[in-house]
Amino acid sequence: MMSFSVSGSYTDLYALTMGEVLFREGRHQTPVCFDYFFRKLPYQGGYVVFAGLNELLHTLETLHFSEADLDFLQAQHFHPAFIDYLRAFRFRGTIYSVKEGEVVFPNCPLVRVEGNQFEAQLVETLLLNMLNFQSLIATKASRMRWVAGERVLSDFGLRRAQGLGGVQASRAAIIGGFNSTSNVYAALLYQLEASGTMAHSFIESFDSELEAFRAFAHARPDQCVFLVDTYDTLRSGVPHAITVAKEMEQQGHRAIGLRLDSGDLAWLAKVTRRMLDDAGLHYMKIVASNQLDEYVIRSLLEQKAPIDIFGVGTRLVTGSPDAALDGIYKLSMAGGKPRLKLSESIEKVTLPGIKQVLRVFNSDGQFLGADAVVLAEEATADIIYHPFVPGESLIVAGYQQQPLLEPVMQNGKLIGKPPTLSDIALYAQKRLSLLPDEYKRFEYPHIYKTGISGRLQELRNKLRDEYKKGKHESAYPDRYSV
Amino acid sequence: MMSFSVSGSYTDLYALTMGEVLFREGRHQTPVCFDYFFRKLPYQGGYVVFAGLNELLHTLETLHFSEADLDFLQAQHFHPAFIDYLRAFRFRGTIYSVKEGEVVFPNCPLVRVEGNQFEAQLVETLLLNMLNFQSLIATKASRMRWVAGERVLSDFGLRRAQGLGGVQASRAAIIGGFNSTSNVYAALLYQLEASGTMAHSFIESFDSELEAFRAFAHARPDQCVFLVDTYDTLRSGVPHAITVAKEMEQQGHRAIGLRLDSGDLAWLAKVTRRMLDDAGLHYMKIVASNQLDEYVIRSLLEQKAPIDIFGVGTRLVTGSPDAALDGIYKLSMAGGKPRLKLSESIEKVTLPGIKQVLRVFNSDGQFLGADAVVLAEEATADIIYHPFVPGESLIVAGYQQQPLLEPVMQNGKLIGKPPTLSDIALYAQKRLSLLPDEYKRFEYPHIYKTGISGRLQELRNKLRDEYKKGKHESAYPDRYSV
Repeated sequence: MMSFSVSGSYTDLYALTMGEVLFREGRHQTPVCFDYFFRKLPYQGGYVVFAGLNELLHTLETLHFSEADLDFLQAQHFHPAFIDYLRAFRFRGTIYSVKEGEVVFPNCPLVRVEGNQFEAQLVETLLLNMLNFQSLIATKASRMRWVAGERVLSDFGLRRAQGLGGVQASRAAIIGGFNSTSNVYAALLYQLEASGTMAHSFIESFDSELEAFRAFAHARPDQCVFLVDTYDTLRSGVPHAITVAKEMEQQGHRAIGLRLDSGDLAWLAKVTRRMLDDAGLHYMKIVASNQLDEYVIRSLLEQKAPIDIFGVGTRLVTGSPDAALDGIYKLSMAGGKPRLKLSESIEKVTLPGIKQVLRVFNSDGQFLGADAVVLAEEATADIIYHPFVPGESLIVAGYQQQPLLEPVMQNGKLIGKPPTLSDIALYAQKRLSLLPDEYKRFEYPHIYKTGISGRLQELRNKLRDEYKKGKHESAYPDRYSV
Repeated sequence: MMSFSVSGSYTDLYALTMGEVLFREGRHQTPVCFDYFFRKLPYQGGYVVFAGLNELLHTLETLHFSEADLDFLQAQHFHPAFIDYLRAFRFRGTIYSVKEGEVVFPNCPLVRVEGNQFEAQLVETLLLNMLNFQSLIATKASRMRWVAGERVLSDFGLRRAQGLGGVQASRAAIIGGFNSTSNVYAALLYQLEASGTMAHSFIESFDSELEAFRAFAHARPDQCVFLVDTYDTLRSGVPHAITVAKEMEQQGHRAIGLRLDSGDLAWLAKVTRRMLDDAGLHYMKIVASNQLDEYVIRSLLEQKAPIDIFGVGTRLVTGSPDAALDGIYKLSMAGGKPRLKLSESIEKVTLPGIKQVLRVFNSDGQFLGADAVVLAEEATADIIYHPFVPGESLIVAGYQQQPLLEPVMQNGKLIGKPPTLSDIALYAQKRLSLLPDEYKRFEYPHIYKTGISGRLQELRNKLRDEYKKGKHESAYPDRYSV
């Protein structure tokens, strides 16, 4: 039951019911354009690391309906002609996107999907499912990388992950700056570095801790990281680890280190470091795990805990305390006309038309702190306007501006060779290094601005006014107020 | 890349490194026993609905290492003899478990895995990954079912789910009491009822909302749920839905209903209901969605919002605000001897030996509010003791007691015919109906007690004293205190 391949049915039912309506009305080939963007930064932080793109593109390239999908839809009373259409379906859309690993901000289009209305609607759920989650986790991971400096970060989260989502979390963690994962499945799938230590049960299954450590050292002398808290960290685990490490030296081997997995990690790490150093085991590293996140890591390092490697589980792979990035996928063009969705709150009125995003740089080559959303035919931006607050504007003329949306898929085919995961992770770190620290701090970070060009603002306001005018034509019965 | 089947590599690396050590030391066949249990109730609630079991068992029955797994492990320098062992590996363990759908409580063994040390350790991560997450989501769903009464609950969460975890979330939601899902993939995989309405983009792609509704009604006259908030719910969406529903009546069709997806749902539902009723459309149902959870649903119903169907997304499928159930998998026997893990805090000292759980019933046939953890050879419990607080005890003699752990897998083979998902969901509702409401309320629920028998307590204390005695034999250098 857990053996499955993602297929055309990895969507919400409405994509198919609407698809059938469009198909039967002869409208499914209407050219449309959708934007992916998010509204709210997670973690009360200052940025998001965009992730999931290349896995999405790979999936779209081969997306199709299996016979099992088609049988299921037949049983759901979909029309035979539509089922035939689905049988032949392949995604042939064109996609523009910011690079995977880019540092991104709210209300900016990050991905633009152009295609016929059926295909562009069908992939909404798949796209949101992959980009929202991986971007959330890459962002979380990048916060831990920021506080951990050059220390090693390893993902230990699969056991507490949200089911199979744990596999994708391991990928996203690497993009955000993690070094390795304990998740062998993800390591194989994505060519990640796999790492791990030992479990309490291994030690308990021997009649003594010392015997367990010796057995491990005998069988895997070059991969020893002794877990030291099964019985008593300082009175039993660390002394036994030292004993075995010294024995290993006699055989010409060096233990890698030991792992603290409970108790006061800062205090235990300091005492353990002294015990190791006094035994001449300066080379042995200290690994720490147990309910870590960016705040605990920061606190440990502020206390000068001599920890070399952090193993992070639940709060990395679930993105806790935030469960999801609120990314959405909104229609901006249909049948050659710009479209928008209205809302009681102006924040939820969408941006119509085909757009580009310009990243603005200051004279030091760092991000200025503002992205300009412009119509695609505008090459540069001079003044940008707050997307929601009338009257607020910012002059960006004279600054270097870099277009972020690039073609990545043409008529269903990938453009160019996809980057490796290492390339993506490197790019993320490079871009994060261009983001001033004020946007990275955890407490009340600087607010990075997103502005829209005058022409885009005019287009939105014009469409909004047209719709509002149309609205009053419909009969509203005034007696319906509560 | 998203096309994969879960294989032996769906584990943490340490299961394999420890496995190789055991294999090379000739200890991998040691018979062991592990318990799955959790320590903390999610949502500050009073119970957990246990879920994921039958998917886990199905996966274990066919678990093996693929050639890709073996190639990867070879590249990681695992020993050729161990790789050969993995090539022939099948899970041949024996499992006892509480029924899937059971209402369960902290510190009670829920699953017991008996097998050789390699296989029992290998499946730790897979088991935790599946049971922790599905139990979290089934519990979350059951809370919404509790407040929603007989109203329809539908899972709309895939787009904000944690990647592929969304598929398993849909399964767990049904166990917790949901009626249907928008996730077509999950509906197909698990034979769930699929449901859905329409998207804003569908409506925007037409030149008017009325035209969009008419097209939908024309193509799918028996599945019309009009989404009414694209432009203006009361001034445009609802009047247009009414217009089209009346036109449909002329053709002998009935619209199912309409969906409110933004704004003040309580107020909008009331006004909408009056508008529908005044138009003679009493049969049309009101669907509500937008950031729902058990608290919002409760509030809507307290306000007497006439909502018939709730579509719930993010907070269902991610279990937000809790990211994970803290379930763990601990060794209780090895080589025929009971084992335990010590800890500075008594709450984390494990329960050794082979155990059974007895559910205690009061004279009304309801749960008394206490489970007894006993040694497997004890048929009943008379007095149970608080597992951590010395001196606290409860007399359970004279009450009906039901053993919860039953054999479900024997030497790697499923025992009996697995229940359908409907069976499991029905069982969950039946068992929840036996749990007094005081344990179900959201605010400060009654605390359900877990006690251990006198004999189990003696065994634990005896082992603990033995380990503590052994500990003092190891040289603790007193100078190491900070």
